[in-house]
Amino acid sequence: MVYPSSLQLLIESLKKLPGIGEKTAERLAFSVFDLDDKAIEQFSKSLIAVKNNIRNCKICNHITEDEICYICSNKKRDNKILCLVENPKNVILFEKIGSYNGLYYVLGGLISPLDGIGPDEINLNGFLQRIEKENFREIIFALKPTIEGETTVLYISKIISKKDVLISKIAHGIPIGTDMEYIDAMTLEMALSDRKKIS
Amino acid sequence: MVYPSSLQLLIESLKKLPGIGEKTAERLAFSVFDLDDKAIEQFSKSLIAVKNNIRNCKICNHITEDEICYICSNKKRDNKILCLVENPKNVILFEKIGSYNGLYYVLGGLISPLDGIGPDEINLNGFLQRIEKENFREIIFALKPTIEGETTVLYISKIISKKDVLISKIAHGIPIGTDMEYIDAMTLEMALSDRKKIS
Repeated sequence: MVYPSSLQLLIESLKKLPGIGEKTAERLAFSVFDLDDKAIEQFSKSLIAVKNNIRNCKICNHITEDEICYICSNKKRDNKILCLVENPKNVILFEKIGSYNGLYYVLGGLISPLDGIGPDEINLNGFLQRIEKENFREIIFALKPTIEGETTVLYISKIISKKDVLISKIAHGIPIGTDMEYIDAMTLEMALSDRKKIS
Repeated sequence: MVYPSSLQLLIESLKKLPGIGEKTAERLAFSVFDLDDKAIEQFSKSLIAVKNNIRNCKICNHITEDEICYICSNKKRDNKILCLVENPKNVILFEKIGSYNGLYYVLGGLISPLDGIGPDEINLNGFLQRIEKENFREIIFALKPTIEGETTVLYISKIISKKDVLISKIAHGIPIGTDMEYIDAMTLEMALSDRKKIS
């Protein structure tokens, strides 16, 4: 028992986070001593709050603390344009650049037959229902340019190709094979404005 | 308001930790969604517990959840040898290599006139009281080999030089100028066994 038990538990907890190894966990755990009581209480509470309060928007699946996220409930957004993204992080990336004023739909995954992820394993039904009910002018695919992303674009665009809707995807300004969260805002903004029609 | 407020608070909390910037904090905060309820509860509780339960040992200043740390209260330790270290992390480094069986004293800092840290700003009194009361055979300095470390060794060894006690310091196997927590266990063990007498 090299560490006091509470410190040991904190180190174990930190090690569960991605990219945090033994040494980093120890360093971070010790740094907690330097935080004031209020900061630690906020840290502690926010962990629980994130798990308890955050759910998926009933309309677009984005993360929210309410039934409907702040984007879907914003009447000023252009409800004729829908941007399809893989996960809530991607919504946040677009919201940070601030130039997109349409709505989103979060698929929660990409079709990947090799990993056993078919169309039924992603949130496709909710999207297809929206396509039927709402009157979109344009659907923008903003999925990462990998095999899985392209497969998903092809699969979905085929299904909706008979609809009277413009289907586009963001431009390949994004380097192939990288995760979207590492792209800088400028590249992402260019990719958004250079989106090209695919049907 | 790009993030739901609880997620924003968690990101702010993570950013207060050393070496965690905006992007890393966001990545770590999102990874909390992948933890199960029990893991998050333990993480949350351990943060509070670390702050509330951990105090300094009344004898050696090492971190502990009791009045006296497990090292000072262990009757099997050699109570004739005292190792002076800068902080509790250093105690843990030595405990991890496991070959030292004596006691410790944590100074909680090093003398650094340039930073306005004199002998009164470190826990020197508790150490001097122990030197008077307890009958040590050897005092080992295990401070980092920087100007501040060497100054502290010189200052303290001068004060206790009249005592009938062997004064030593760990060998300079440790590269000059680096923090002790980055040293591998083997180097640290060699430095401990190669300690040399200075008076």
